[in-house]
Amino acid sequence: MNPIEKLAQQFKEFPGIGERQAKRFVYFLLHKNPSYVDDLGKAILEIKNTIHQCPSCFLFFQNDNNERLCENCRDPKTDKTSLLIVEKDADLENIKRSKNYKGMYFILGGLVPIVTKETPNYVRTKELVKNVENQIKQHNLKEIIIALSLNPQGEHTDMYLRELLAPLQKSSELTIVSLGRGLSTGTELEYSDSETIKNALKNRA
Amino acid sequence: MNPIEKLAQQFKEFPGIGERQAKRFVYFLLHKNPSYVDDLGKAILEIKNTIHQCPSCFLFFQNDNNERLCENCRDPKTDKTSLLIVEKDADLENIKRSKNYKGMYFILGGLVPIVTKETPNYVRTKELVKNVENQIKQHNLKEIIIALSLNPQGEHTDMYLRELLAPLQKSSELTIVSLGRGLSTGTELEYSDSETIKNALKNRA
Amino acid sequence: MNPIEKLAQQFKEFPGIGERQAKRFVYFLLHKNPSYVDDLGKAILEIKNTIHQCPSCFLFFQNDNNERLCENCRDPKTDKTSLLIVEKDADLENIKRSKNYKGMYFILGGLVPIVTKETPNYVRTKELVKNVENQIKQHNLKEIIIALSLNPQGEHTDMYLRELLAPLQKSSELTIVSLGRGLSTGTELEYSDSETIKNALKNRA
Amino acid sequence: MNPIEKLAQQFKEFPGIGERQAKRFVYFLLHKNPSYVDDLGKAILEIKNTIHQCPSCFLFFQNDNNERLCENCRDPKTDKTSLLIVEKDADLENIKRSKNYKGMYFILGGLVPIVTKETPNYVRTKELVKNVENQIKQHNLKEIIIALSLNPQGEHTDMYLRELLAPLQKSSELTIVSLGRGLSTGTELEYSDSETIKNALKNRA
Repeated sequence: MNPIEKLAQQFKEFPGIGERQAKRFVYFLLHKNPSYVDDLGKAILEIKNTIHQCPSCFLFFQNDNNERLCENCRDPKTDKTSLLIVEKDADLENIKRSKNYKGMYFILGGLVPIVTKETPNYVRTKELVKNVENQIKQHNLKEIIIALSLNPQGEHTDMYLRELLAPLQKSSELTIVSLGRGLSTGTELEYSDSETIKNALKNRA
Repeated sequence: MNPIEKLAQQFKEFPGIGERQAKRFVYFLLHKNPSYVDDLGKAILEIKNTIHQCPSCFLFFQNDNNERLCENCRDPKTDKTSLLIVEKDADLENIKRSKNYKGMYFILGGLVPIVTKETPNYVRTKELVKNVENQIKQHNLKEIIIALSLNPQGEHTDMYLRELLAPLQKSSELTIVSLGRGLSTGTELEYSDSETIKNALKNRA
Repeated sequence: MNPIEKLAQQFKEFPGIGERQAKRFVYFLLHKNPSYVDDLGKAILEIKNTIHQCPSCFLFFQNDNNERLCENCRDPKTDKTSLLIVEKDADLENIKRSKNYKGMYFILGGLVPIVTKETPNYVRTKELVKNVENQIKQHNLKEIIIALSLNPQGEHTDMYLRELLAPLQKSSELTIVSLGRGLSTGTELEYSDSETIKNALKNRA
Repeated sequence: MNPIEKLAQQFKEFPGIGERQAKRFVYFLLHKNPSYVDDLGKAILEIKNTIHQCPSCFLFFQNDNNERLCENCRDPKTDKTSLLIVEKDADLENIKRSKNYKGMYFILGGLVPIVTKETPNYVRTKELVKNVENQIKQHNLKEIIIALSLNPQGEHTDMYLRELLAPLQKSSELTIVSLGRGLSTGTELEYSDSETIKNALKNRA
């Protein structure tokens, strides 16, 4: 296959990229100066070597001095008594950006499908249980915050995780909570759904 | 002016209707059967006579037996110890639809502008104070719920109302609250703003 | 039914208006000054009396002096040798706005469905044939311009009309044409479909 | 800088890619299997070596046997008497896709700005003149088709090219045409602008 077509096919696998834009990426590179294209190609070839996944929270992080854990897991200033569960790296980044949480993270890797019985293996439920058990032992974990998007699959996963972690909870004074619900920035009362209004009334303060 | 143009001009004043759609409304009527057009014209001429505005909560309601107050204000089953303040009728309707509130309402009529000093007279602040004073006297009002959209002007109005009602609060064990904040239906953590994340963490449960 | 609900139901029949906006229209009227509401109601009641439909071109027009035909059909300056067929009044208005045509019009009233065999009676095919026959007799019509939107149903109707009018064409030196095709304002070559490119190449000049 | 951030910065230069999607691309690669990432990186490093730009029409093409010209310029079956000028590769691809043109191409590289006096050097006007001169000499070029998007800058460039090529035209029976204008697929008469209607009427057939 023509290298232009071939590269376009590869770009087409990128999230949210269709055939036309994939092709446009190729022409973009053909018009760009060689040094940029060279740097990009090398950066892509190296990314998997320079970036590791933390075996504890599964965050991707830069590993220079052969550290086992990511910075947040190593940092003594991290509040080890609180663990926040997110679906994916982008969610974690966004929560970090808001600068309102100082504890530990755990990246689940995906949501639990509502239909199928068994949980896909990219959803790290076993790893989560193991992680929580360790945190309880090592740093007497006090709180687990389930921080998932508020859509059917997210709510399903929320319930799933509460059942999954309930046993560990009994054996310690561990609380499991979810992110608060109500009006979010931009919510117009005229258009908000009954569920949101219900939550907003329940959590009024 | 040509009656088609003239009627189109009148429809153009309707909320969210531009020139083209206003014109389409006219052609729609010209093509419709006469009885529909007749009923519509009469219904519009009648609406202001059949619908009154409640002098207490300012809700529009059908007044057959020359009742002074709207049904919700009259209904003995209404919880008179709670008052919910909304911006406009459509907000109130939506909250009713969610079937999660059984108390009194007050329709403010608009939001308080952030820039201008004085409050426009379509925002019923004096009427609100009067209403709250009455509710305290007559049914020992216990809670005021400020239920405004979560946007800058809504938040500004929220603060404004709290200041406005503070004096009345002192002279009674009256609490003033606002709708809860956090994730609303459909909120994706990856895209939600820091304010929403902050509220969602603060109100976790 | 509550008059607010009832009027909202009537507005809901307006083209492109959903339940929420219909309700908003009612509240808009309830807040408007009585004179506006009164004028609107009366204008709607009168529209069908003041506006007639031209029996020749089927345009809606204001009929004060009991004229039989619309102004364009009466006007001696109108080029009676050319007839332009459009689907609906709004199309005709838009073509007039472009000030590029001085001939006669005919409003078809709708497009011919592709699936069903028989043509719905709101599509004035019989009236069109009658009109064309008259124009040929009275003003030796020379050109018929089929001016329909460029979508499947429009193209189907175009072919349908050409077959319908072919017999009349034989008996006179009458030409039947359709609007030109090619790039329209805003067309980006990168995104335009093969059909448009084909027409643009064919009609290059 | 963190390799994740660094690679995201590089992806951010891609056309139409913002910060968030650039970051998502990086996580996409981190989750992808190593072979895909490896292939992609190598393909990007290779692209500039395997793809050359035709010195005659400036199309990017795969150059295996060290050919000087692209396939279309070499192909004896190409109609050498017709030259079609497009803005960019994507336009040419789309025109090829429509399979309605068998002649030569010339990729201008950009449009001529309306405001600034001098033409930016990425717009290959000199190369175009040279190319046309050659085509006239070598294959007695008969027709130049200016095929630019129908927007202000495109129309400005169209006029600019006609002036630029006029001298060459005199010295030979060469015609210069532009793509036809009128209704394009999907055009609704009710919403089309006066310019489009004017063209559609002018080019009726």
